[in-house]
Amino acid sequence: MSISSSTSIEPIGVITCKAAVAWGPGEPLVMEEVEVSPPQPMEIRIKVVCTSLCRSDVTAWQSQAIFPRIFGHEASGIVESVGEGVTEFEVGDRVLTLFTGECMSCKHCTSTKSNMCQVLGLERKGLMHSDQKTRFSIKGKPIYHYCAVSSFSEYTVVHSGCAVKVSSRAPLEKICLFSCGVAAGLGAAWKVANISEGSTVAIYGLGTVGLSVAQGAKLRGASRIIGVDINTGKSEIAKAFGVTDFINPDDCSESVHQVVKRITDGGADYSFECVGDTETITTALQSCCDGWGLTVTLGVPKVTPLISTHYGLFLSGKTLTGSLFGGWKPKSDIPSLIDMYLRKEIKIDELITHNMPFEEINQAFNLMTEGKCLRCVIHMPK
Amino acid sequence: MSISSSTSIEPIGVITCKAAVAWGPGEPLVMEEVEVSPPQPMEIRIKVVCTSLCRSDVTAWQSQAIFPRIFGHEASGIVESVGEGVTEFEVGDRVLTLFTGECMSCKHCTSTKSNMCQVLGLERKGLMHSDQKTRFSIKGKPIYHYCAVSSFSEYTVVHSGCAVKVSSRAPLEKICLFSCGVAAGLGAAWKVANISEGSTVAIYGLGTVGLSVAQGAKLRGASRIIGVDINTGKSEIAKAFGVTDFINPDDCSESVHQVVKRITDGGADYSFECVGDTETITTALQSCCDGWGLTVTLGVPKVTPLISTHYGLFLSGKTLTGSLFGGWKPKSDIPSLIDMYLRKEIKIDELITHNMPFEEINQAFNLMTEGKCLRCVIHMPK
Ligand SMILES: [Zn+2]
Ligand SMILES: [Zn+2]
Ligand SMILES: [Zn+2]
Ligand SMILES: [Zn+2]
Repeated sequence: MSISSSTSIEPIGVITCKAAVAWGPGEPLVMEEVEVSPPQPMEIRIKVVCTSLCRSDVTAWQSQAIFPRIFGHEASGIVESVGEGVTEFEVGDRVLTLFTGECMSCKHCTSTKSNMCQVLGLERKGLMHSDQKTRFSIKGKPIYHYCAVSSFSEYTVVHSGCAVKVSSRAPLEKICLFSCGVAAGLGAAWKVANISEGSTVAIYGLGTVGLSVAQGAKLRGASRIIGVDINTGKSEIAKAFGVTDFINPDDCSESVHQVVKRITDGGADYSFECVGDTETITTALQSCCDGWGLTVTLGVPKVTPLISTHYGLFLSGKTLTGSLFGGWKPKSDIPSLIDMYLRKEIKIDELITHNMPFEEINQAFNLMTEGKCLRCVIHMPK
Repeated sequence: MSISSSTSIEPIGVITCKAAVAWGPGEPLVMEEVEVSPPQPMEIRIKVVCTSLCRSDVTAWQSQAIFPRIFGHEASGIVESVGEGVTEFEVGDRVLTLFTGECMSCKHCTSTKSNMCQVLGLERKGLMHSDQKTRFSIKGKPIYHYCAVSSFSEYTVVHSGCAVKVSSRAPLEKICLFSCGVAAGLGAAWKVANISEGSTVAIYGLGTVGLSVAQGAKLRGASRIIGVDINTGKSEIAKAFGVTDFINPDDCSESVHQVVKRITDGGADYSFECVGDTETITTALQSCCDGWGLTVTLGVPKVTPLISTHYGLFLSGKTLTGSLFGGWKPKSDIPSLIDMYLRKEIKIDELITHNMPFEEINQAFNLMTEGKCLRCVIHMPK
C-alpha cells in the first residue's frame, strides 16, 4: 500500500491498496491493486481494520449483475481522511460502516417511526449516493461498490452519514458484526416485533441473524423460543443463544408450522423468517397464532423474490412486516448496542466461528456457501 | 308462517316459515317453506326483521359448493324463543346477528388483542357450531347455514354467542348494517390501523366497507383520504363519507400506486384493500410509504386467494395485516357503535341505496352483482 499524499497539509490524494475484487457472478475474488480516490465532500476515507462476511454479500455476488465490484458491508476501521464539510469525524476516529445511512434531516430520519433514509438509504447500483460515481478504480477503470460500503478493501470511501463513531473501548475485531446481521436480528426482536415477556417465538433459520433474534427474545423474557434449521449441528449454539426447542424440519413427519402450532397451543405470538426464502415466509405466517400473530421477514431471498401466501392468513388477524437493519436508526442507535455489548448484556463473540487474514477471504465465501460458518471475521493487514 | 307450538309453557316446537333457499351456485334463490327447529342448548331462535345483502353472501353463493343453503349474515330481529341454559336473552329482545361470535371464555375472547373466538368463530361448513348439524330442513332434508346466521329466512336459529342485544331506540331497519360491512370498515380504520390525526389514507374499493373506512379515517382527522374505484358514479357519496381525492384507475395514464405516491409525497401512511382482489392487495402495499406504511386487507377475494407480492415491499418497513369484522369483539364492542349512530356521530343511512320486501331478494343479488347498490335492506314480512 502506498499513499500518494500522506501529510494533512497537502491535498488528500489517491491511495493505492489491495482490494478483493469480484469480476463476475460466483467467481472467486481476486486480490488486486486498486486506486481509492480521496473522499468527496461529506465523505470519509476509512482504513478498514476488520470486516465480516454477511450472507447478503454472498447472495449479491452469486446473483447480481454489477461487476467488477468490491463487496463487504460489515466493517470496523479508522478514519484516514475526511472530505470537505465533514465536521462529525476526524482523522483517527474509530468507526463502524453502515450499509444504510442516516442523513439526519429527511422525512424519514426526522420521524421516530422509520429508518428508511431517503438520501442515504440502501444503494443498489454499486455507486456512491452523492454523485453516482465510484471511488475505486483499477488503472483508471471504475470498480463498483456494494451498498456504498465495500469493505473488502484496505481502504474505502463512505458517506459520512454511512458510518458511526464507536467507543475507544470497543474491540474492532468483534464489533464489525453490529454493522449488519447482529443488529438486524436484535432490532427485529426489540424494535420491530417488540417481543413481550412470556410470549412464544418461532425463528426460521439459525444463522447470525436468527441467533440474534433468539438472543433478543431471550432478553425480553420469551417463555418459549423455537428455532428451526435444517442443520442439527446448530442446536448447541442455538441453546446458548436462548432457543428452548430446536426443530429440524427434515426430522418432522408433519409440516413444521403444525409442530410449532402444537407446541405453542395454536401458534406462536411472533415468528421470524431469517432464511431468505419466500416460501418460508408463508410457513412463518402459518406458525403464528390468529388474532395477534406477527411475522417479521428479515431474509433477503436468494431465488424467488415473490411471497405467495393465502389471504385467509391475514383475515384471521395475522400481520406480516419487515425491516431493513432491524428498524434501527444506524447512527443514532448502534452506539447503545455496542455499549450493551461492552457491559456484557449482549454477546456476539460466540457468533465468530472463524478468523482469517484478508488474503484468505475466498475461504470465507466457501464456508458461507457451504453453511459451515456463522461469521468469518477478516482481518486486514496492519 | 305457522308455529307448531306457540305458547311459552309448552315445549318450543318447530316453526315452518318462508326462506330464500339457494339450490346451486349462482342460481336464483327460491322462496321455500322450511322447517326451523327449536333452539338447542345455548341457542336462540330469532324472528328476522331486516337483513341486508353483503358482498360475501354473493361471493359464497357464486363460488362455494355447499347447497342447498340459506345465506344472509347482516340481520336484526327479535328473539322468538330461547334454548336451554340461555340467560342472556329473553323472548322479545331486539338483537343483531353476528357472523363471528364471542364465547367470552376462550384464549382469544379473554385476550384484549383478538376477536378470533376459537369456539364460535367463522363457521365454514354450513352447520351449527355446537353439534355440526343444521336447524333448517325442507320435508326433513337438511338445508345448510351460512356463517351460522342464515338470515334470509323469516326465522333463524343462532348460538347465543352469535347475537347481541341492541337498544330499543335503535331502528332495526338500519342497524343491520352493523352486523358486518359498516363495522368491518370502521374497525379497520380505528382498531386495526388506528389511524392518527393528519395522516394520509388510500382506500381501494368504495363499497359499504370502503366508505366506512373513509368515514372512520375522517373522524380520526386524516388529512387526505384517497378513494380508488372503477365506478366514477361513486365519487359523490365518497365525498360525503370523507374521501378528499377520488381516483378512477381507468382514467389514469400511470399505475394507481404511482398516483397515490405522488399525491402523498412518497406513499400513504395507511392503505386499505376493500375490493376483494388479491392483486389489489399488492397495489395497496405499493401505495404505502416506506418505514411505517400499513396495509389492511378486508376484502374476501372472489377469485384467486393467493397474495403474490415482492418481499422488498416488506424489507422497506411496510406492514400487511388483516382482520375479521374489523377486529371488533362482536358482543362487547358493537353496542357502542350503535350508540354512536344514535348520537349521530356516525352515519349509515346513506349507505342504504335500496329497500325491498323479502320476496324481491333476488333483485338485491342482481344489484350487488352489477355493482349498482351499496346496501339493499330486505324487509321481512311483519
Ligand atoms: Zn435521511
Ligand atoms: Zn448484511
Ligand atoms: Zn371465544
Ligand atoms: Zn359481510
